[in-house]
Amino acid sequence: MKAYKIPEATVMRLSVYSRYLYQLMDDGVKSISSDEIARGVGVSSAQVRKDLAYFGEFGTRGVGYKVDVLYGHLMKILGLDRSWNAIIIGAGKLGSALALYEGFNTRGFIIRAVLDNDPERIGTKLGNVEVEKLDVLAERVQENNITIGIVTVPASAAQEVTDKLIHAGVKAILNFSPRVLKVPNKIILRNVDLSVNLEVLSFNINFSK
Amino acid sequence: MKAYKIPEATVMRLSVYSRYLYQLMDDGVKSISSDEIARGVGVSSAQVRKDLAYFGEFGTRGVGYKVDVLYGHLMKILGLDRSWNAIIIGAGKLGSALALYEGFNTRGFIIRAVLDNDPERIGTKLGNVEVEKLDVLAERVQENNITIGIVTVPASAAQEVTDKLIHAGVKAILNFSPRVLKVPNKIILRNVDLSVNLEVLSFNINFSK
Repeated sequence: MKAYKIPEATVMRLSVYSRYLYQLMDDGVKSISSDEIARGVGVSSAQVRKDLAYFGEFGTRGVGYKVDVLYGHLMKILGLDRSWNAIIIGAGKLGSALALYEGFNTRGFIIRAVLDNDPERIGTKLGNVEVEKLDVLAERVQENNITIGIVTVPASAAQEVTDKLIHAGVKAILNFSPRVLKVPNKIILRNVDLSVNLEVLSFNINFSK
Repeated sequence: MKAYKIPEATVMRLSVYSRYLYQLMDDGVKSISSDEIARGVGVSSAQVRKDLAYFGEFGTRGVGYKVDVLYGHLMKILGLDRSWNAIIIGAGKLGSALALYEGFNTRGFIIRAVLDNDPERIGTKLGNVEVEKLDVLAERVQENNITIGIVTVPASAAQEVTDKLIHAGVKAILNFSPRVLKVPNKIILRNVDLSVNLEVLSFNINFSK
């Protein structure tokens, strides 16, 4: 795992703040205090100020933040002032769901290709993308300038497709398979375990009793 | 949003620690220091100690933690020393993927029913569960003692099915739809936006340049 100075929890909150600010702009709100952001997203205002302080001074004491300016800064910090090309390997239920997930497009993540080795899946359409065979992996990554590989194959195939993605030139891997993947240090790896979302619920049900 | 004394990021890390300890038990490791846990999961050892300190003293100074005892404590804290019954509303690609997701079962989350109002989906099998019509929602929640409702319907239907789930008696809602849901204070709500996972990658690609 690579270590950065900015905690991952902070990055995830920046993402939440940016969505909230987008809503506010939509509602015509021009400026906002850290207290208001805090109330809006459900964290402490000290946390909001600490998270933003990693990236310099955005606000004016007593006045707060200009919504559009702060939004622009956050999107730039998150790398969302541009779009990112991604490829999905594995066109099963989860891969298909991700290929059709509208939330990716609206944040600038474009699924350029979906690959699988199951003849029954190859040729089926997922939105604008047609499922293709695994053989075209390197070709698709290179011709589409793909930076992010999304792995939704079974555990047994996950390391092999990851190696191929890295060899083809992706810089980051989002791993939905339960397999612990080995990647070179320069590659950014994120493992997604969907049950963590349920565990936050079970914890809270437990503690609210 | 409900506020608890324990930060959500801590809960998510406890979940990560518990998986790591499970692996260690599997490998026959008997005791471990906070430094070793920290290295194993990629956070600082101060963070590990702080996270565990919320729940009292588990380790012995200079000796560390007994792996099986700490694992047991963490599973209890997370509410995973028991199983939880869940229902999925919406049998589209994402709902189907979640119904078949093996990671839920292994952590004690049992999908008891999957409902949809599309006649083409009703009657199809997702693992052991057959998709049923929405009308049986209250019946299924009550007869299976279901605590958690998972919402994967389109935004336009999300509030309506959420209201029905709450009326039927669920205590927590995991919302995968982009709709901002209104729920009573006593209900635990968690919104999942899958693009956050990609944003952590784009942030890190940005910062590693």
